[in-house]
Amino acid sequence: MVKKIDINCDMGESYGNWRTGNDEEVMKYLTTAQIACGWHAGDANIMESRVEMAKKNSVAVGSHVGLPDLQGFGRREMKISPREAKIFTIYQTGALKAFLDRAGIQLQNVKPHGAFYQALLKSEELSRALAEAILEMNPKLYWYMPVPNLSMKVAREMGVKPVGELYVDMDYAPDGSLLVRREQFLYTADPKEVAQKIIKFVDEGKVKAVDGTDSELDANSVCVHGDTKTAVQELQTIREELKKANVEVVPITQIL
Amino acid sequence: MVKKIDINCDMGESYGNWRTGNDEEVMKYLTTAQIACGWHAGDANIMESRVEMAKKNSVAVGSHVGLPDLQGFGRREMKISPREAKIFTIYQTGALKAFLDRAGIQLQNVKPHGAFYQALLKSEELSRALAEAILEMNPKLYWYMPVPNLSMKVAREMGVKPVGELYVDMDYAPDGSLLVRREQFLYTADPKEVAQKIIKFVDEGKVKAVDGTDSELDANSVCVHGDTKTAVQELQTIREELKKANVEVVPITQIL
Amino acid sequence: MVKKIDINCDMGESYGNWRTGNDEEVMKYLTTAQIACGWHAGDANIMESRVEMAKKNSVAVGSHVGLPDLQGFGRREMKISPREAKIFTIYQTGALKAFLDRAGIQLQNVKPHGAFYQALLKSEELSRALAEAILEMNPKLYWYMPVPNLSMKVAREMGVKPVGELYVDMDYAPDGSLLVRREQFLYTADPKEVAQKIIKFVDEGKVKAVDGTDSELDANSVCVHGDTKTAVQELQTIREELKKANVEVVPITQIL
Amino acid sequence: MVKKIDINCDMGESYGNWRTGNDEEVMKYLTTAQIACGWHAGDANIMESRVEMAKKNSVAVGSHVGLPDLQGFGRREMKISPREAKIFTIYQTGALKAFLDRAGIQLQNVKPHGAFYQALLKSEELSRALAEAILEMNPKLYWYMPVPNLSMKVAREMGVKPVGELYVDMDYAPDGSLLVRREQFLYTADPKEVAQKIIKFVDEGKVKAVDGTDSELDANSVCVHGDTKTAVQELQTIREELKKANVEVVPITQIL
Repeated sequence: MVKKIDINCDMGESYGNWRTGNDEEVMKYLTTAQIACGWHAGDANIMESRVEMAKKNSVAVGSHVGLPDLQGFGRREMKISPREAKIFTIYQTGALKAFLDRAGIQLQNVKPHGAFYQALLKSEELSRALAEAILEMNPKLYWYMPVPNLSMKVAREMGVKPVGELYVDMDYAPDGSLLVRREQFLYTADPKEVAQKIIKFVDEGKVKAVDGTDSELDANSVCVHGDTKTAVQELQTIREELKKANVEVVPITQIL
Repeated sequence: MVKKIDINCDMGESYGNWRTGNDEEVMKYLTTAQIACGWHAGDANIMESRVEMAKKNSVAVGSHVGLPDLQGFGRREMKISPREAKIFTIYQTGALKAFLDRAGIQLQNVKPHGAFYQALLKSEELSRALAEAILEMNPKLYWYMPVPNLSMKVAREMGVKPVGELYVDMDYAPDGSLLVRREQFLYTADPKEVAQKIIKFVDEGKVKAVDGTDSELDANSVCVHGDTKTAVQELQTIREELKKANVEVVPITQIL
Repeated sequence: MVKKIDINCDMGESYGNWRTGNDEEVMKYLTTAQIACGWHAGDANIMESRVEMAKKNSVAVGSHVGLPDLQGFGRREMKISPREAKIFTIYQTGALKAFLDRAGIQLQNVKPHGAFYQALLKSEELSRALAEAILEMNPKLYWYMPVPNLSMKVAREMGVKPVGELYVDMDYAPDGSLLVRREQFLYTADPKEVAQKIIKFVDEGKVKAVDGTDSELDANSVCVHGDTKTAVQELQTIREELKKANVEVVPITQIL
Repeated sequence: MVKKIDINCDMGESYGNWRTGNDEEVMKYLTTAQIACGWHAGDANIMESRVEMAKKNSVAVGSHVGLPDLQGFGRREMKISPREAKIFTIYQTGALKAFLDRAGIQLQNVKPHGAFYQALLKSEELSRALAEAILEMNPKLYWYMPVPNLSMKVAREMGVKPVGELYVDMDYAPDGSLLVRREQFLYTADPKEVAQKIIKFVDEGKVKAVDGTDSELDANSVCVHGDTKTAVQELQTIREELKKANVEVVPITQIL
């Protein structure tokens, strides 16, 4: 049996004169790229260019929707209403879709960013608003999210297709929840180890938690980070290791 | 023979907590509403609400695209490149289109705002970039613009459908060009006089210039301003006068 | 014995092309004006003009510091760090102070706005950060705040001079806390009743709560709202009523 | 005779999560640092930190004031009025000054950035507005500017102290004007050559133009760029070469 996994990464998180990540190179190792839409990062110029990069590399594209907080990179908690969660998602996704339409690419998914995702995680009401945004835009769109997550249950109930994400360069608590820590951004994971985590997950559907126990995750996509200096090299190693282990890296549409 | 004219107005120029114009009432007297897209005015909340108002009143919708200058209301000249003219238009129009798609309405036209329009007027290169944006998004979209205007020639050459606008509450120079003056915003036109100007124009295709001579204009839409205190009452009078004179107020699709 | 009270109001909450309130007229009835500093409202143009209005009317000026959220008018809760609370206050107050220095006016106080104030209210850590900002800028600055409030205790402990505010157009709970309600913004208070509340407060140091009981408040300034249509007329009536009751309206420096 | 020159550099041009330049290291080689004030780059957090870096290294500080265009990094031409030129400068300088006051440092100078400087260069009216801003804030402030420049004449006439800048990593036309080219940002100058240009200038008051002829410049400060990868190493070499040639690198207050 062939084992399959999707690899996704946040792209287009530069802004104006400022640059983040080597998107051009990182794009080559992905099957899904969520592109920032100008609210937490990204601008029209960068969005257009990242859509072209994705097209060139046949990478599927999602909208990476964020809170209206450029200064805080969408990472500051902000209390938004369900209506705001919905219309913020529609606005940003629409702006990105215009560049996708122009490039002749279908939008594949929506993925809330940073504190927006964190807010959804904790609120059924906000999660429902996001599901509604997706249903009203296009019920075929996938909703990417870390797991486990209250949003996944809401998505399923409402007929939206959730895609659970595995975060291989971060640590998991025994209950399967992500341990988000400031230090994670300084920490560079060993790519071979990362590949082993993915292979283990593809085989068993489990990740090892910080206490050594295994935890099941309902995930079909691995989220990698492309903004470290060694990201390209690491991604190359990961892809090689996955190939050796007969893990096929494919878009989510070939999995779910 | 029935004489026809389209009446358009800038809508959705509020922002966050700040309000401009009585859009809900003004909308009732229009056949075309161009809605601000969040760059010079407007935000996701207001865009969604104005799209619903347009739908309720069967008013056709255009994207009112502006320069990235909220503080200056898109009225400060800013030197942008042709690429910027193009991608700024695509981003903003895409964001609006998402709300239109959701409401089941087709986008009818694109209309650049303020200093963006002024920049296009003077530059063939920028005008070509705007025409390209329209062609790449949807060649059926109309491009609204004051006339006479270098952009109209460019639009026609490139296969984009231009719609010339008549500005009835502003003065025209003998060469048919608009006299944009700060005082215009304080000046309240007599609605009966305004209606007479429209009727004269529909009859003869001409407007009277400040020197008393007549000037021909290639226009099919009247642009009215909805942000004055007396706008609603004036629009009501104008519509009544036009009705008496057998001028039909219809969407541009029934004219061109 | 002469009874004294300070009357303060938020000024300069317009932005760019958008206007809020009739600051020019309202200013005549105040002894303290806190001026927005460009983050939740206001811009350099408006700040300069409001400083001149305050000077003309001999009104003392405070900085009205807000969260970096123009779209949300600084009313959306945002999780900020103590460091952010401090430097946001210093940046905004510094920008305002430059216009005050130019006009030859001393800065009198700092007053956090909207969700910034709400965040301080609930957090000793953030309150300490604000007190530090004041001490580092100028220990003579007053800190205006609704009461009762955790921030007042912190201010006193740290050697900052707090000024409690009475909100006469809002309702108080029996425990003396403000009942902030969306509807309050639609509600227009009877100015004679408002004046009676102030007179009662100046006499007894108490406000009547919604349940009819009296509640003591440690306040020396009345906060009025200048952005309603009838604000000017109401303020005139209030000032007349206070005069009749021998309540002197004076700057806080003549009280504390 | 001891020859003296000031070395200045733009600092604090990061924003939020985005980083530009290694300010911490570059600061060690400067005598003047102009710090961005949040309009074209920089934010309160970065401003505070750069002020502390300047203090630690005894570097004099200027305000680096820009147009309100974060997305365009203040490099897009924008038509502003003289009033705007003045109040934009006062707002930004005031915000920076608050951090300087807190650190116990005097503000030394004002230096307009990018398209703001370009606009001043061409307009006597705007130059007068900037001079007025300085005179109203503090007549002792220096005004840094590339030379030759219409602004210098205006500054002198109005009693403001101009400081001409030498740009050693850019090319000069035979008339002494700077050749600003996009490619300059890719071009890394040989630091020894750069040092020789400075030494020649300090000796003769002249720079070599692209056509090989010498051109006199009224300059007392060298502007270096700190945002390239090799900036720190280059600055170290330049400082060593200047030392060998007995050129003293000192603050402008020890020169003018």
